[in-house]
Amino acid sequence: MNINFSEYAKLYKPKIDEILTTILETKLKEVNNSFLKSYYSELKNYLLSGGKRIRPLLTIAAYNAFSKKNEEKIILPSTGMEFLHNASLIHDDIIDKDDFRRGSPAFHYRFKKYHENYSLKKMVAKDFGTSIGIIGGNTTFFLGLEPYLINDFDNQINYKAIELYKKAFVDVIEGVLIEIDMINQTDISIEDYIKMISLKTGALIEKAMVIGVNYANTDEKYIPMISKLGINFGIIFQIIDDILGTFGNEKITGKPTDGDIREGKKTCLLIISLHELSENKKTRLLDLIENPEMSEKDISEVKKLFNEADVQNKCKNIAKKYYNESKDILEKLKSNINPSELEFFESLLNFIMDRSF
Amino acid sequence: MNINFSEYAKLYKPKIDEILTTILETKLKEVNNSFLKSYYSELKNYLLSGGKRIRPLLTIAAYNAFSKKNEEKIILPSTGMEFLHNASLIHDDIIDKDDFRRGSPAFHYRFKKYHENYSLKKMVAKDFGTSIGIIGGNTTFFLGLEPYLINDFDNQINYKAIELYKKAFVDVIEGVLIEIDMINQTDISIEDYIKMISLKTGALIEKAMVIGVNYANTDEKYIPMISKLGINFGIIFQIIDDILGTFGNEKITGKPTDGDIREGKKTCLLIISLHELSENKKTRLLDLIENPEMSEKDISEVKKLFNEADVQNKCKNIAKKYYNESKDILEKLKSNINPSELEFFESLLNFIMDRSF
Repeated sequence: MNINFSEYAKLYKPKIDEILTTILETKLKEVNNSFLKSYYSELKNYLLSGGKRIRPLLTIAAYNAFSKKNEEKIILPSTGMEFLHNASLIHDDIIDKDDFRRGSPAFHYRFKKYHENYSLKKMVAKDFGTSIGIIGGNTTFFLGLEPYLINDFDNQINYKAIELYKKAFVDVIEGVLIEIDMINQTDISIEDYIKMISLKTGALIEKAMVIGVNYANTDEKYIPMISKLGINFGIIFQIIDDILGTFGNEKITGKPTDGDIREGKKTCLLIISLHELSENKKTRLLDLIENPEMSEKDISEVKKLFNEADVQNKCKNIAKKYYNESKDILEKLKSNINPSELEFFESLLNFIMDRSF
Repeated sequence: MNINFSEYAKLYKPKIDEILTTILETKLKEVNNSFLKSYYSELKNYLLSGGKRIRPLLTIAAYNAFSKKNEEKIILPSTGMEFLHNASLIHDDIIDKDDFRRGSPAFHYRFKKYHENYSLKKMVAKDFGTSIGIIGGNTTFFLGLEPYLINDFDNQINYKAIELYKKAFVDVIEGVLIEIDMINQTDISIEDYIKMISLKTGALIEKAMVIGVNYANTDEKYIPMISKLGINFGIIFQIIDDILGTFGNEKITGKPTDGDIREGKKTCLLIISLHELSENKKTRLLDLIENPEMSEKDISEVKKLFNEADVQNKCKNIAKKYYNESKDILEKLKSNINPSELEFFESLLNFIMDRSF
């Protein structure tokens, strides 16, 4: 039976969500304090308010690719990376001052509202929200260790998964810091950009897949290939994200198309433009971007300069390079992995390359 | 050879600091990006800018209490809890808006200053400091897993240590959240307070000791005793901390004596007063405490009401109860643990009970 990405998701997403629910409900049962109950219950609502569960699905698929026995027992440890991902989203929303995520309130914003509803003493609502948000991210990082501690696999394998969990997040942090620092750089090579997004976006996807292979206990020779495939998925995803962030349809993506420009983010679009435009236009582009208070007109002018540099095609061509490389890796893996997971990976690759949301 | 707390610290602190240094310098060597180098180097400076290393010392002592072979190899995994402790201090300083810690700049404050020195684009200095502070705490949480992943013990034992590492921090978070919620409660029993500080302050000390016993691979029957001893150390430490926070000598403690009162913290002092004072005085105390803008005169009046309730003696008596219980546990352990560590625990117990800083 062949099975593509959306069928795979349909099959496993309810089971992944069931485990996320169980872990949070177990915590809820353990605590007596009423504020702790509100806290864990809000965390449960937040975790279940949306999300495509791409990382757990990748762990499950990487596991099933090499092993078909006991496929159910991989679902529990596959959720570790989903906690890690959500923990970093909770902190990101504080850092970026985003009050909403996937159309639902951000975690910190839920506690800003909580404060307002109960008119709490001594703290202002915004600070209360931020404090509980910082703590909430931390809880989620630590709950993410749980799936490796309570499953049916051998502890030696779990120990290795925890090492990958740690590495994944240290990588993500380094990617995020390099990106923050890039806001102040003007001379960034495409290689630097690829390095940065490999860490920021690629590491979690890569480690989710390597963790799956690790649990399948297969020949280690496949790990470099799976690792490369995961990083490439991340690179392609981020490049397309950069394009959609400025040229996407707001109604479909749900994100305003001026955000990245206003933040001065060194997206693929901006980096390509700085390389391709004439010296005069490059200077003009930098003047516009570095202005802390950009007008609507400034945003339009930036987009016009982006288009003059033909950024959409050029960025897509870079993504295409990693797409082709991934096709080659899948071709090489073809005879060693199960056909249904081969189709899963192929359809996921096509989805992230061609997506419009 | 008997050995008391300060001699023990003198012996092991340099070795603990050496490992903290090595872990951070290894990270520094791994990264090429100049901002990442500044980041890890600032983290190294922060970690080494002070701290009594109580938690690693407790892991080492609990290990040595039951085992004398290979004592050096325990030093590496003993540092996990020090990372965990510092990670939570980094986040606490953001939440409490404290720009200094142990007389040195707080981690987030270092990056506020960094921003000002380099006049970075697009972000304001305070937000930049907060962002790097949140991320810095997260790095430190994850670096704290490293000591369990790279040492000379068996992976099965390391796996158990990671489970304790996770439990320790989930406990601390729950204690901190209960404490935040208590600001809005007026009717708190001593039992609730003890439960809260057992989590907030006791859990890290307890788990540091249990991790030591775990590495010594000794009879499991000792774990409940060591666990109780660790929680008691935490309880006594916190009660004395509450007293010193309001009645200590600022020149010795380095902390202003109006902080806890201004924050409305439910310290042992405040909880005892709310139980002991007459209804009129209790109402007056609550009015004073709940005022967001307290004057110097208000602070003095609160301290006067505290004294009327004889809080210092009453709180010390509660601490004394846990002190005596700990003495009994040590007496029971006497014939089963090494005499030098028995003396270490006894002198530490006396130190935290009698300390004035």
